[in-house]
Amino acid sequence: MTLPSPLRIEPIAGYSPTIGRLVGMLTYARSTTLLAVDGLTLAELDHVHDAESNSIGALLAHIIATERSYQVLTFEERLLSPQENERWSSAVKLGAHGRPSLRGSPLEHYLEELMAVRRASLETLAARDDAWLERTVKPAPSLNAHWVWFHVAEHEIHHRGQIRWLRARLPKHNLRDR
Amino acid sequence: MTLPSPLRIEPIAGYSPTIGRLVGMLTYARSTTLLAVDGLTLAELDHVHDAESNSIGALLAHIIATERSYQVLTFEERLLSPQENERWSSAVKLGAHGRPSLRGSPLEHYLEELMAVRRASLETLAARDDAWLERTVKPAPSLNAHWVWFHVAEHEIHHRGQIRWLRARLPKHNLRDR
Repeated sequence: MTLPSPLRIEPIAGYSPTIGRLVGMLTYARSTTLLAVDGLTLAELDHVHDAESNSIGALLAHIIATERSYQVLTFEERLLSPQENERWSSAVKLGAHGRPSLRGSPLEHYLEELMAVRRASLETLAARDDAWLERTVKPAPSLNAHWVWFHVAEHEIHHRGQIRWLRARLPKHNLRDR
Repeated sequence: MTLPSPLRIEPIAGYSPTIGRLVGMLTYARSTTLLAVDGLTLAELDHVHDAESNSIGALLAHIIATERSYQVLTFEERLLSPQENERWSSAVKLGAHGRPSLRGSPLEHYLEELMAVRRASLETLAARDDAWLERTVKPAPSLNAHWVWFHVAEHEIHHRGQIRWLRARLPKHNLRDR
C-alpha cells in the first residue's frame, strides 16, 4: 500500500479501471485511519470513554473483522461459517459483548492485521475485472460487489470519525510525552 | 434524490457511467445521514455533549457548508470569495468559533438545506462527463474532481459516525415520546 495516498481517484496500474478507482478510495480511507491512530499507546488503545463506548483498539479490531467478513462474502461468495462467526463475533458485534476480549494489544498488532487483511483484499481485487465488480453478490442478492467494497471504505470512515473524536478526549495522563 | 438508496454501485441513467457510480455513493451516504438524524427535536439538534463537542445541528450545518464550498471549487473552479468565507466560516470551522451561531434551527431547516445543496450538486454532475471527473481541479492542482466528490461523501460519513455516537448519548429528557 503506497502512503500517503494521492488525492486523486482515477484508474491505477494493475487493476481494471473501475476497480482502480475503488482501490484509490479504500487506500485514502485507510491512510486517514492510520493517521488517526498514529502513536497511540496500549493504554490509549484500551481506554473506554464511557460505559457504552468502544475503545479505539476495539474499533480497529472491528474494522479488520469487517473487511475479512466482506472478503468471504464477495471473494468466496458465501456467508461466514459457524467457526468464523464464533472467532470474529467479538470484533464484529462490539459493545459489551466484545469489550472483555478486545484489549491488551499494542498498536503494532492492529497495524499488522490491517496490513494483512488489506493485502489480501488488493491481491484478489487485482485479479478481478470491472464486470465482476458490478455483479450481484450471490449470498446477498440485494448487493453488488462494488457496493460492498465501497461499504468497506465507508464503514471504516464512519468509525474513523469516532476514533478521532475519542482520541481528542483521551485522558491527559495517557498521552505520551510529545 | 431517490430514497432508500439501493445497495448497488453502478451506472445510473442521466449520468455518465463513472459519475453515476459516484452519485450512488453520495446518495447512499446521504441516506444514512438522514436516518441518523431522523426525528431529532430542536433541543436534541442543539445539545452539546461536552465542552469541546459540536452539536448534531452544527455537524449538519458543517456537512452542508462543505458540499457548497466543494461546488465552488470544482464547478466554478475557484476558491471561496471573502464574502463566502465570511458567510460560511462558522459552519466550515465549527468548534468554539461556530457554536454561538449554529443553533436554534429545527430539523426541517437542515433537511431543506441538505436537499437544496445536493440538488445543485446532482444537476451539475448530470451535465458533466467522466473526463471532467478525472480532471485536475485548477485552483487545487493536487486534487482531481473525482477525489473531491468522493471526499464530499467521505467527509459526510466521518461526521455521521460522530452524529450516531452523539445521538446515542442524548439526555433522556430530550427524547420525544416514542
